[in-house]
Amino acid sequence: MPTDSKPFITPDALLVHWQGHRRLTRRVIDAFPDDKLFTFSVGGMRPFGVLTLELLTMAVPMVRGAVSGDWNTSSSRDPLHKHEIHRLWDESTEQLNALWPQIPPHRFQETITAFGQYKDVLHNLILYVIDNEIHHRGQGYVYLRALGITPPPFYERG
Amino acid sequence: MPTDSKPFITPDALLVHWQGHRRLTRRVIDAFPDDKLFTFSVGGMRPFGVLTLELLTMAVPMVRGAVSGDWNTSSSRDPLHKHEIHRLWDESTEQLNALWPQIPPHRFQETITAFGQYKDVLHNLILYVIDNEIHHRGQGYVYLRALGITPPPFYERG
Repeated sequence: MPTDSKPFITPDALLVHWQGHRRLTRRVIDAFPDDKLFTFSVGGMRPFGVLTLELLTMAVPMVRGAVSGDWNTSSSRDPLHKHEIHRLWDESTEQLNALWPQIPPHRFQETITAFGQYKDVLHNLILYVIDNEIHHRGQGYVYLRALGITPPPFYERG
Repeated sequence: MPTDSKPFITPDALLVHWQGHRRLTRRVIDAFPDDKLFTFSVGGMRPFGVLTLELLTMAVPMVRGAVSGDWNTSSSRDPLHKHEIHRLWDESTEQLNALWPQIPPHRFQETITAFGQYKDVLHNLILYVIDNEIHHRGQGYVYLRALGITPPPFYERG
């Protein structure tokens, strides 16, 4: 096996890593008062609830698209109650676990076009979805601090 | 080759991905007025300059430790001029490029203890460093917006 095909990380370990991030994001959603999720922000940015809907419409749709070529996703950013977001989040967790093993391992190194417009190697497209979650969750931390709420520890992923 | 040793991403590609993030973080540092870098924050959080010094004291030191077992790093968070941070950032870029290929490929799947206290698989430790950069940079985006400054686009990494 040539050195350049050794993994930095395997698909199985990457899913574990991602789901750890998603557990933390779920706790950040939970830390917001229900009446602030779609109303509060800093510097004219989007409220955390809207960012959360963006994350939901990227994660499963990216993986489903990589598996099936079906790139449908929702563009609605209408406010939802926190318990509804939690339900969607938990459904996505199960869907990711079910879809992920259906991606053929060689596919992660292939260039595909996601959502009809984003052409890149699949591992980069998936990392973009994860990185976008971390990026917006970091913004949620600032919103929480500005509300006087202590966010959950960044390093806890269990 | 068993399926479970196939890469999600290879070490070479992961370094390219990381350096793309680091180019974006450099632009976020650059977007801050020099007099705001170590003075301005939101919600009582640390200023972006302090967060930047944290990132600098994690990236090269983590990779150097993985290569050599030398876990020394700086704990100083004293304010620096932006041009000094840029110089440290660019030095780190070169050091990462030089050190990265010295990590034996099998090492990424090994459990090590970083900085004498963080025990995990090396790929998780490195992802933690990258994710921490994305997390704090996302907070920098909010600081910039609160200052009335448009941050650089998240998707541009070149």
